[in-house]
Amino acid sequence: MIRINENFLKLQSSYLFSKVAQRVADFEESHPDKEVIRMGIGDITHPLPPACIKAFESAIKKMARQPTGYGPEQGYPFLREKIAAHDFQARGADIAADEIFVSDGSKSDAGNIQELFADNIKVALQDPGYPVYLDTNVMAGRTGAYKDGRYNGIVYLESTAANQFIPELPTESVDLIYLCFPNNPTGAAIDAGKLQQWVDYARDNKALILFDAAYEAFIRDETLPRSIFEIPGAREVAVELRSFSKSAGFTGTRCAFAVVPKSCRVYDAEGGRHNLHALWKRRQTTKFNGVFYAVQRAAEAAYSPEGQQQIREMIDYYLVNADLIHRELTTLGLELCGGKNAPYIWINTGQDAWEFFDTLLHKAGVVCTPGTGFGRCGERYVRISAFNHFEQVKLAMERIRTVL
Amino acid sequence: MIRINENFLKLQSSYLFSKVAQRVADFEESHPDKEVIRMGIGDITHPLPPACIKAFESAIKKMARQPTGYGPEQGYPFLREKIAAHDFQARGADIAADEIFVSDGSKSDAGNIQELFADNIKVALQDPGYPVYLDTNVMAGRTGAYKDGRYNGIVYLESTAANQFIPELPTESVDLIYLCFPNNPTGAAIDAGKLQQWVDYARDNKALILFDAAYEAFIRDETLPRSIFEIPGAREVAVELRSFSKSAGFTGTRCAFAVVPKSCRVYDAEGGRHNLHALWKRRQTTKFNGVFYAVQRAAEAAYSPEGQQQIREMIDYYLVNADLIHRELTTLGLELCGGKNAPYIWINTGQDAWEFFDTLLHKAGVVCTPGTGFGRCGERYVRISAFNHFEQVKLAMERIRTVL
Repeated sequence: MIRINENFLKLQSSYLFSKVAQRVADFEESHPDKEVIRMGIGDITHPLPPACIKAFESAIKKMARQPTGYGPEQGYPFLREKIAAHDFQARGADIAADEIFVSDGSKSDAGNIQELFADNIKVALQDPGYPVYLDTNVMAGRTGAYKDGRYNGIVYLESTAANQFIPELPTESVDLIYLCFPNNPTGAAIDAGKLQQWVDYARDNKALILFDAAYEAFIRDETLPRSIFEIPGAREVAVELRSFSKSAGFTGTRCAFAVVPKSCRVYDAEGGRHNLHALWKRRQTTKFNGVFYAVQRAAEAAYSPEGQQQIREMIDYYLVNADLIHRELTTLGLELCGGKNAPYIWINTGQDAWEFFDTLLHKAGVVCTPGTGFGRCGERYVRISAFNHFEQVKLAMERIRTVL
Repeated sequence: MIRINENFLKLQSSYLFSKVAQRVADFEESHPDKEVIRMGIGDITHPLPPACIKAFESAIKKMARQPTGYGPEQGYPFLREKIAAHDFQARGADIAADEIFVSDGSKSDAGNIQELFADNIKVALQDPGYPVYLDTNVMAGRTGAYKDGRYNGIVYLESTAANQFIPELPTESVDLIYLCFPNNPTGAAIDAGKLQQWVDYARDNKALILFDAAYEAFIRDETLPRSIFEIPGAREVAVELRSFSKSAGFTGTRCAFAVVPKSCRVYDAEGGRHNLHALWKRRQTTKFNGVFYAVQRAAEAAYSPEGQQQIREMIDYYLVNADLIHRELTTLGLELCGGKNAPYIWINTGQDAWEFFDTLLHKAGVVCTPGTGFGRCGERYVRISAFNHFEQVKLAMERIRTVL
C-alpha cells in the first residue's frame, strides 16, 4: 500500500492570497466604476533591464546555431565568477565562485536546504516570516500539531515593535535558524552588530543560519551589511540565499543562487564534522539539472556596467514609492516598519488585519496584504508593497489620506 | 548542534562519468593525433527547432515591454492545454490540462516525488536504471546499507536478456514502482500487454507506478503505448513524467512535466484514501515557483505544426543513427537491446564493461558508457548513444568493425 507522508496533513491551508483575491473580486463586481489599486503584491511591475534583454537575444541566437546541451548543475562558471566578484569579494566578503550554486529560485533553495539535516533538529524562524521556511519543515516532520496559530516544536523568533522587528536571540538552544533581511514582510533591515550576535550565537551553539538576502538590492544605507559573509566568523555557520527576482526583476524568469562556503560545518550524531558544501553539491547534482543557459547569460548581464546602472534605477524607482508610502502613513500617525532599504511597509493597524483590509478596500479602493498569513505576530498588521507605478502609489496615498 | 541527514552518508560516490572523462583525457594526451568519437553521452547534438527559437524571440520581445511577473507554479494554461490535447487526448488518454504540472526537468520531478510518501514504503526500481530514482530514496532513508552493488531494502527489478529487458512483476508486495520506457540505458520499449500487467499489479497491491516516459518521442512502432495513461485503469495508480529535453532538444533549456491524475489515490496508515494530485500541488506550490515564461512559450511552439514537423525530423535523424549502430553491431555478432524506438543501444560485451570500454577507446578511439553506473545488471554491458552527427556515427562504426 502506497502510504503518504502524513506530515503533509498537518499543513494549514494557505487561503491568504485566494481570500484576498476573492474579496477584491467581490468588491469590483459591486463597484464596477471604482478603480482598485493593488498594493499587496510583492511582484515587480517593471520589465527586465535592457542589458538582460540584449543578453537573452544574443543567447537565443547562439542556441539557434548550436545546442548548449546540459549545463553544469551548479551553474556556468561565467555567472558564478561574476557573482563572487561583484556581490561578495568587492564588499570584502571572502566567497569564491565555486561556493555559489545557481538555482531556479530562492523558493526552491529555501525549501530544499532542510533536506540536508536530521529530522530532530530544532528549527527557529521569524514570526512574521516567509511561509516556505515553516511549511517545508512541517512537510519534513520537524513539527508537532498546529494549535493557536503555531506548530509545536518550532521556536518562533518574534519580530515586534518592542524589538524594532529584529528578534532577540533564542533563550533555548536551536540548530537551524532562518533569518531574512531586509525582511519580508516587515521591511526591517539588520545592522552589522546585531547580525554579529547571531553569527556568534551560531558559533557558540554549533547552529546554522540560513540567511535569506533576497531583498539586499534595496539596501541604500551603506553601513548595513548586504551579505552575512561581511560578518566575521560567518563562513563556518551560514548559508546565504540571493535572487535576481527582486534585484533585476527576474520574478517570472527564475534565477537565484545559494552561497554555501566550503568551510561551513555540520555534524553527525557522534559530533563528527561534515562539510555542508559537499552535501548540498550532492543534493543539487542528484535532484536538479541547472538553469537555462540563456537565463544565466541574462543574469550575467545584470553585472555589466549598463546592467548595474539599469538595476539601480529600477530599485531607486521602487524606493521612491516606498519613501512616499512611509512619509504619508507616518503623517497619518500610523506606527510602521520598513520602507527604507526594503520594498515593504509593515503597518500596525491597531485592529484585526482583515477588518483594516476591508476598510481600505471598501473606503479607499486600495488592496493591502493582511499580516495574518505571515504568522501570529502579523494578526494586527498589514503589508504594503512598493512594487508599483509611482502614479498609482500617489493616487493610493491620496485616497488613504482622505479615508483614515 | 546542526545534525545532518545521515542517509546522505550511505550514498555511493558517483564516479562513472568522471572516470570516463579521465580515461578519455589520458588517451587523448597520449594520442594527440587520434580523433576520439564520443558515443557515450545522452545529450542532444542538434540545436533547438526553429519554431521554438521563434517563440523565444517573440517572448523576449514581449518581456522587454512588460514584465511577466511570477507565473503559476503549475505552468501556464496555454502550455498545459496544448500538452493535454496533443500528448494525451489525441491518443485516447483521458488527461485534463489541470492534471499537468510543468517543471524545470524530469530529474527534479523524479527526485522530488518521493517526498510525498511515508519513510517505510517498499520501493522497486529497474536494474539497470537511471540513478536518480535510487539515490533520492537513499537520501530519504528508505534503504539500509550498501553491499555488493545494492542497497538493502530496495526491490531491484532485473532487466536482462532472459526477460528481453522488461522486468517480471515482483514476487513480494511493493508500494512505489519506478518504470522507465523506452528505457535508459537499455533502450527497451514496453508493449501495452506488459504495461497492463504492471497497472493491474499496482491496482491489486494498492501500489503506485512512477512512469518515466522521457524518451517517448522515439517510439515509431504505432502499436506501442506512448503513455501509461493509454492503459485502462492507470489513472488511479500512476504518475507519468515527460520532458522536452529529448523530444524538442531542451536539455539545456529545462522544461518538463509531471502528469498526476486527480483520481490517483494514496493512503494513510489507517488505509484512508488521499488524493495524490492535491499533495503534489501542495509540494509544488510550496517549494517551486514555476518555469520561465519564455521557455513555456518555446515549449508551446513545439506543438505547432512546424514544431511537430521539425521535432519529428530531428528524432528521425537520431533514429537513423540508432538504426545504423544496431545493424552494424548485430552484424558483428553482438547481443544487444534498444536502437528501435529509443536512442540507446545496450550491448552485452561478454566481458567486464570497463575492459570493453578500454578496448573500444584504445583500439577504435570510440567512447561508450560502461553499464556499471546503472546497476549491478550493467556490469558486463555498455551503452551507446545515437545522439550524434551521422558522419561521426558512420566513422565510429567503421572503426569498431575493423577492431572487433
